[in-house]
Amino acid sequence: MINNLGNLVNEVRSKKPLIHHITNYVTVNDCANITLAIGASPVMADDIGEAADIVGIASAVVLNMGTLNERTIKAMLAAGKAANAKNIPVVFDPVGAGASKLRNDTAADIIREVKIAVLRGNISEIKFIAGIASKTKGVDAAETDSASLESAGEIAKNLAEKLGCVVVISGAVDVISDGERLALIENGVAMLSNLTGTGCMCTSLVGSFCGAAPNAPFEAAVCAMLTMGIAGEHAFEEAGNQGNASFHTALLNAISLTTSDTIQKMSVFTDG
Amino acid sequence: MINNLGNLVNEVRSKKPLIHHITNYVTVNDCANITLAIGASPVMADDIGEAADIVGIASAVVLNMGTLNERTIKAMLAAGKAANAKNIPVVFDPVGAGASKLRNDTAADIIREVKIAVLRGNISEIKFIAGIASKTKGVDAAETDSASLESAGEIAKNLAEKLGCVVVISGAVDVISDGERLALIENGVAMLSNLTGTGCMCTSLVGSFCGAAPNAPFEAAVCAMLTMGIAGEHAFEEAGNQGNASFHTALLNAISLTTSDTIQKMSVFTDG
Amino acid sequence: MINNLGNLVNEVRSKKPLIHHITNYVTVNDCANITLAIGASPVMADDIGEAADIVGIASAVVLNMGTLNERTIKAMLAAGKAANAKNIPVVFDPVGAGASKLRNDTAADIIREVKIAVLRGNISEIKFIAGIASKTKGVDAAETDSASLESAGEIAKNLAEKLGCVVVISGAVDVISDGERLALIENGVAMLSNLTGTGCMCTSLVGSFCGAAPNAPFEAAVCAMLTMGIAGEHAFEEAGNQGNASFHTALLNAISLTTSDTIQKMSVFTDG
Repeated sequence: MINNLGNLVNEVRSKKPLIHHITNYVTVNDCANITLAIGASPVMADDIGEAADIVGIASAVVLNMGTLNERTIKAMLAAGKAANAKNIPVVFDPVGAGASKLRNDTAADIIREVKIAVLRGNISEIKFIAGIASKTKGVDAAETDSASLESAGEIAKNLAEKLGCVVVISGAVDVISDGERLALIENGVAMLSNLTGTGCMCTSLVGSFCGAAPNAPFEAAVCAMLTMGIAGEHAFEEAGNQGNASFHTALLNAISLTTSDTIQKMSVFTDG
Repeated sequence: MINNLGNLVNEVRSKKPLIHHITNYVTVNDCANITLAIGASPVMADDIGEAADIVGIASAVVLNMGTLNERTIKAMLAAGKAANAKNIPVVFDPVGAGASKLRNDTAADIIREVKIAVLRGNISEIKFIAGIASKTKGVDAAETDSASLESAGEIAKNLAEKLGCVVVISGAVDVISDGERLALIENGVAMLSNLTGTGCMCTSLVGSFCGAAPNAPFEAAVCAMLTMGIAGEHAFEEAGNQGNASFHTALLNAISLTTSDTIQKMSVFTDG
Repeated sequence: MINNLGNLVNEVRSKKPLIHHITNYVTVNDCANITLAIGASPVMADDIGEAADIVGIASAVVLNMGTLNERTIKAMLAAGKAANAKNIPVVFDPVGAGASKLRNDTAADIIREVKIAVLRGNISEIKFIAGIASKTKGVDAAETDSASLESAGEIAKNLAEKLGCVVVISGAVDVISDGERLALIENGVAMLSNLTGTGCMCTSLVGSFCGAAPNAPFEAAVCAMLTMGIAGEHAFEEAGNQGNASFHTALLNAISLTTSDTIQKMSVFTDG
């Protein structure tokens, strides 16, 4: 059982780690704002000509292939390798893996050439990367890919062991494994999927916590997913019936108001 | 007279069509969120290397040239042609047509090489495309381009007939024609022009409705513009005096709360 | 002492100047919306193929190198030169100068090849450009770069004189100089740094005011920084305890509600 996860919130807020993102232009503003809201500092920079320089001042690197293109794919690989050379944790979000050959090839290239600390995706994306037949619907999980918790746990554990990293499968229950341990997080609300970028924002939170605790990627991933799930619950209670945009506002508000106590008191998860 | 337009809202919400966007980075987040808010599913992907793959899983394609560049222009043409080959409706938003040679040439190329289902723009953009002298002021309509309703109706009808598509001219009164029929929509508020991207968001709504009703682009366009106009009215009543950002929030809230009843009860339009 | 700064707000709202931005994709939506909120009209266009055309219809050009890349660097230089040729004011935001060789070289190129009307940055960025040892932390000012007001005033004044432009150093107190005059603005709240893009938004405001008063860049810069600082105070009072996103909403609301009276009554600054 993980103890004192809430302390990680204090760590982020006191260390203010710089999180280098190469990410998509759809949700990048929310990613930057959620990184600030949890207490870290975002820098978005995607030119290969400055990849090494920016990695050199960062505490974690987030690679998100949401709107990948030829130019940024090269920058993601360069930034990932530069981070590896400096032992800076790399968090990878394989957005839309399974939806196009370009995404499939890019995900494979990144996983082969970069040592990933945490891989976070939905069940369709993770199944695709695990080599299990899946049917990604654009950037959202396909309903036909839904897996029992037991099965998702197996997939996460096996893939984590194979890749030597932490694997996070986001869903109604978030499943997180480092190949040995398995955490199941029940916090969260269905309304989160009504907003674009809640997956990307989770990845930025994982990056933020990894930046503060580079040697504890499993704990960082668990704390990030708890933070998002609990904030979603607060936002739903506050604004769920007002519509999507008020829920969006309340979600980011809740992240910015998160304290160690929030995590300690609201977490609903099992690990072992 | 079109009957039961409200049913189209139910169609979008039950079918959740995937809408492939190649669009600008200014308003892309709002476009993704409005697509989700009306019940469809957005995927933004602009690399030519995945254009055909993403079109292959989509129900409609939105091409928006707001921040066009050499790379994305090619991707727009490729995605448009791939959509034509699969009979997937293409919605085109010629943002800023008339403001630069690059935009003028790109709009002409897309219209020549891609079969468009719905063309949506402001009066300056549409007049430019119709070959009528206009003076686009950046991405907004020039005041000197304002046309009488009668004249705008003629322009829309003639251009729709010429291009074999539906033409939407957004304005204080929205004018929509398929070359035979003409709809005039009175819903909406002037405050919508205080926000960036309300035009782009309309185009994403047209794409969402076209994805659910690919064989009824005229009805889809009418329903999309009604949805936006009515949501604008609700937002203005709710938050108009609080400032632009609260109006923005209220607008997206209203879209997410739109039902078939909203359209049936609030619509103010004539067609024939 | 500058008189009647509030009149500049009326000038922007009546002239509605078109502000051409080449800016980053992280905060571009906020930049467009704040430009609209103060009464100007934004156009974001970054392809070199239309730089001259778009500059040709603009009243001011904003160059922001937040997510610079090889393609947009060339477009920024081209747009800057085109603006110089037409005597249109260029406002430059050297985001992250000091954080990578690419940013350092680009900032140097732009300053050498383009005549800047207003340069706006944080203390780390401005110190770097002034040739003073600094340590930019990504896109935020490093704490070790904090300068006494007296020292910041000297830096701004000397750099302004050297470059022949207005220099704005954003911070707890904003420091603005044209090489002779020096204004210190006390309006503002610390919470502004909890949001991404408040610096970029200031630059867009400077661009908007310069577009309305192209021959008074010092007054334009002072009025822009006052507008942001005062809006921040209003937003903090309204929503500071609700969380970051509500503060964000309240900030843009306050900008949209700004009048000449707001500036006249709320300004706390000294100049001379």
